[in-house]
Amino acid sequence: MTGPASTVDRRAQPRSDPAHWQSALTAIAPNSILIRGYPVDEMMGRLSFAEAVYLLLMGELPTPAIGRMLNAVLVSSLDHGVTPPSTLAARNVATSGAPLKDSVAAGILAFGPNHGGDIESCMRFLDNGLSLVRAGKSVQEAAEAMVDDCVRAKATPPGFGHRFHTRDPRAARLFQMALELELEGEHVRLIRAVERVLDVRKADFDRPVPLNVDGAIAAVSADLGFAYDLGNAIFLISRLPGLIAHAHEERVRQQPMRQIDPKDENYDGSPQRKVPERRA
Amino acid sequence: MTGPASTVDRRAQPRSDPAHWQSALTAIAPNSILIRGYPVDEMMGRLSFAEAVYLLLMGELPTPAIGRMLNAVLVSSLDHGVTPPSTLAARNVATSGAPLKDSVAAGILAFGPNHGGDIESCMRFLDNGLSLVRAGKSVQEAAEAMVDDCVRAKATPPGFGHRFHTRDPRAARLFQMALELELEGEHVRLIRAVERVLDVRKADFDRPVPLNVDGAIAAVSADLGFAYDLGNAIFLISRLPGLIAHAHEERVRQQPMRQIDPKDENYDGSPQRKVPERRA
Amino acid sequence: MTGPASTVDRRAQPRSDPAHWQSALTAIAPNSILIRGYPVDEMMGRLSFAEAVYLLLMGELPTPAIGRMLNAVLVSSLDHGVTPPSTLAARNVATSGAPLKDSVAAGILAFGPNHGGDIESCMRFLDNGLSLVRAGKSVQEAAEAMVDDCVRAKATPPGFGHRFHTRDPRAARLFQMALELELEGEHVRLIRAVERVLDVRKADFDRPVPLNVDGAIAAVSADLGFAYDLGNAIFLISRLPGLIAHAHEERVRQQPMRQIDPKDENYDGSPQRKVPERRA
Amino acid sequence: MTGPASTVDRRAQPRSDPAHWQSALTAIAPNSILIRGYPVDEMMGRLSFAEAVYLLLMGELPTPAIGRMLNAVLVSSLDHGVTPPSTLAARNVATSGAPLKDSVAAGILAFGPNHGGDIESCMRFLDNGLSLVRAGKSVQEAAEAMVDDCVRAKATPPGFGHRFHTRDPRAARLFQMALELELEGEHVRLIRAVERVLDVRKADFDRPVPLNVDGAIAAVSADLGFAYDLGNAIFLISRLPGLIAHAHEERVRQQPMRQIDPKDENYDGSPQRKVPERRA
Repeated sequence: MTGPASTVDRRAQPRSDPAHWQSALTAIAPNSILIRGYPVDEMMGRLSFAEAVYLLLMGELPTPAIGRMLNAVLVSSLDHGVTPPSTLAARNVATSGAPLKDSVAAGILAFGPNHGGDIESCMRFLDNGLSLVRAGKSVQEAAEAMVDDCVRAKATPPGFGHRFHTRDPRAARLFQMALELELEGEHVRLIRAVERVLDVRKADFDRPVPLNVDGAIAAVSADLGFAYDLGNAIFLISRLPGLIAHAHEERVRQQPMRQIDPKDENYDGSPQRKVPERRA
Repeated sequence: MTGPASTVDRRAQPRSDPAHWQSALTAIAPNSILIRGYPVDEMMGRLSFAEAVYLLLMGELPTPAIGRMLNAVLVSSLDHGVTPPSTLAARNVATSGAPLKDSVAAGILAFGPNHGGDIESCMRFLDNGLSLVRAGKSVQEAAEAMVDDCVRAKATPPGFGHRFHTRDPRAARLFQMALELELEGEHVRLIRAVERVLDVRKADFDRPVPLNVDGAIAAVSADLGFAYDLGNAIFLISRLPGLIAHAHEERVRQQPMRQIDPKDENYDGSPQRKVPERRA
Repeated sequence: MTGPASTVDRRAQPRSDPAHWQSALTAIAPNSILIRGYPVDEMMGRLSFAEAVYLLLMGELPTPAIGRMLNAVLVSSLDHGVTPPSTLAARNVATSGAPLKDSVAAGILAFGPNHGGDIESCMRFLDNGLSLVRAGKSVQEAAEAMVDDCVRAKATPPGFGHRFHTRDPRAARLFQMALELELEGEHVRLIRAVERVLDVRKADFDRPVPLNVDGAIAAVSADLGFAYDLGNAIFLISRLPGLIAHAHEERVRQQPMRQIDPKDENYDGSPQRKVPERRA
Repeated sequence: MTGPASTVDRRAQPRSDPAHWQSALTAIAPNSILIRGYPVDEMMGRLSFAEAVYLLLMGELPTPAIGRMLNAVLVSSLDHGVTPPSTLAARNVATSGAPLKDSVAAGILAFGPNHGGDIESCMRFLDNGLSLVRAGKSVQEAAEAMVDDCVRAKATPPGFGHRFHTRDPRAARLFQMALELELEGEHVRLIRAVERVLDVRKADFDRPVPLNVDGAIAAVSADLGFAYDLGNAIFLISRLPGLIAHAHEERVRQQPMRQIDPKDENYDGSPQRKVPERRA
């Protein structure tokens, strides 16, 4: 039996997938790009990037309120300084002289279960809690049962706890916006109930368990109807510019092949300033 | 000599980098995250994601016009269907059952010099052309000299040519917006001059050389003052949601470990529809 | 509050990790590199690469028999043609003009749970089976119970089933070598018992369930004492040269930015030939 | 125009690649895997992994001497402790809880031009030097001209200089083996001449410029006939087990989400020991 012949034999094998497959995202024709049916050139200038992201992922245009909310969600996790593992992975690739996209890819790989992946865990945690509500418990009772479970398992509830912050300003702002935009749903109400229960029972945990931004994104994303995977994906989109900014800064400000010690960093950027009241 | 001793010896070596290093991006303190000096919770709800990206990468808030322009740039390359190598790399990783972020990272790695990297090449191409203008040539003369160089080198000008489109609707829309928003600068003017010269001299090329969206993004990004690296980075940000959407669709609609043949795809999504006139 | 001050505040926070940490792998001193205590320059020429890999991962030199076995394991999965998702991910990155290492990284990302990750699943499957043996069952009884569980769960047993092969020649060869080298241990004995049970009960499965090379590597790796993670890692090492070869061939033989359809490939390499009897 | 229709239109477009394409690496048929024509099950047990790698990349079986040399090359760069950027990228991904393969992929991305990529640069540097020899210069004169060029450009010659070592023990051992195995060719002879010239002219450089292991691998790989890309690839294969070992150690010995500071590491492995004289 020779090689070419063997290739023919293989073709005779039943294939593990049907010959034709479907995609519902984008239709390409000469001089035409339809994203979920909308010409992309008509979307440009009429939709913000966050709204276009919602359309692509969810299949329909968002309401203006959802668009504002998603913009805020994406802004919330834009960057968190030099210490996250994702940022350090990106900077270590940058110091080797690799292309910027390689730094970004390495940074994305560092969004593991302990770092960003918490969003999916928290969405599942809340959905489990809501099944208690469906079964007849009040939101308060469900929240207490959820915290009981965590205490018994000696586990930090997903979406709670932070290395630096005791009150995460991003979480508070997201909930305030959800309220103002009338987008607060059952996931946000449940996580806020869990937050209150934890405040009472904080002595049962061996570390502080404030609500963190992952928890807030998880609750808001779940209320907006995102799939678990897409909850994590929203975090990826939010964080990408931060990875880019650090990789770029590493390339233009630092010498190549240095040993990067996160504790030795000094911030030398702008002092604190105020965002103008109303712009867009 | 033993291992532990040798470690001490190494410490005595001069290190290749100074003990302290600087970053100007983000200052983290307990319950405070300042991005370029602005509290991120104040940015949320006041800046669109695109405006926040500009702030992080460039150091200052954009004008509202620049904010609108950058939103349009980010929307322009959101997705291009199933055939780009980046999309296929992402789908092939997804079919192995790997986490969504792994698909995304693989897709990003496929933005090589021939795919997205063209933006940096085009920015350099335009800057070289502008140095002719600085040296006394008119924009028209510079454009002709630039095309001459490409013909001599038998090279497609960076930012021109496309596998599918003969008139890229995204490029046209970006230039129209640049004009309307009064953001048209010397890079856009030069690339449009090159486009006109190419239209006359298309017979000198062995493939169609319409302006493509990479060229339009390159010219607009250069006029906005982005560094070369950041021109490519804008494309990464724009394309990330498309990679996510394809990886997610692969996971939820297709069987695992299939052989992905881009020619066998059928679009089964929404028929063409119209974006409502004015929303945001 | 200003940025720099906030940085000082952060330093005052308790850190989540102790200041010092340990590694037992490699000691570096000027002009000295000790891997697990051995000078690397003394290892060169005295250890095969496979033996050095064993030393690095396991901490001690392998016996010559283990060295031969590990060389065979690493050769077994060197390449599997153009159709695996890992190979297609690597080729799709290569066609974009990205550096070779980017293709390789994307290929590695495609070794998800359905592709290579099966080795870890099979090691766990066998360890669960052996716990039945420890509890008093015979190997035959344990194998029957393991198959029963899979039939009940309508699941293919990890390490069994293949898209192309009905009798995987690599698995047979690995077991023959394990026998000859007197390295056959309880994991190999158990998986062979499972293989025999499956042969009798093949009608209970809706697809053929021959033992595959992942199963054979899993059993051999477990008998050699590798951790679950390292079982997968052995597969990565084995497969890396194949990813490199395909990425390199894509770069030198194919035009850039092509659409890669695995079904359109024709093999045009050497016809079948015989490995000389005894070389090394 | 609707989406589905547009897909048909696209099919009518001329495709940028021919329908059929070729690969000369591996032929797969049911129960048969031929790598470069050799049944992989016959290779197992008869070829070392390094020899099989040579076969796959180069198309023919290596001589036993080349097999021994390639084993030594692959052993030479197995690991270099915790400080290289590739190792730190891998460890930072591991601390996020991501799968081991993700750590490995991130580590590979850190083999940029300054880190491993130097092998390709050095191969090109030597080939340029050899073109001087072809044009009539002696090896000594070529080496002097090559060093002159570097001094003029204030550049460190590719393959020379190291962060820690003043005399790289791996380079010395590779050259000794090349001599003993009668594999020393013109690239090794030229780089040794450059080494001697640099020893005399070291005052012309602002840092020590000892030959490093990248230079030695470059010269040996070039003498063995590897393409530039494959020179870098050999380094990837060599280094992969080190990335795996560090990612695995991070996962099993360290707590998650820690800040990894390379300066805080202490080696706590085996003290120095001697490789037994003759094993394989």
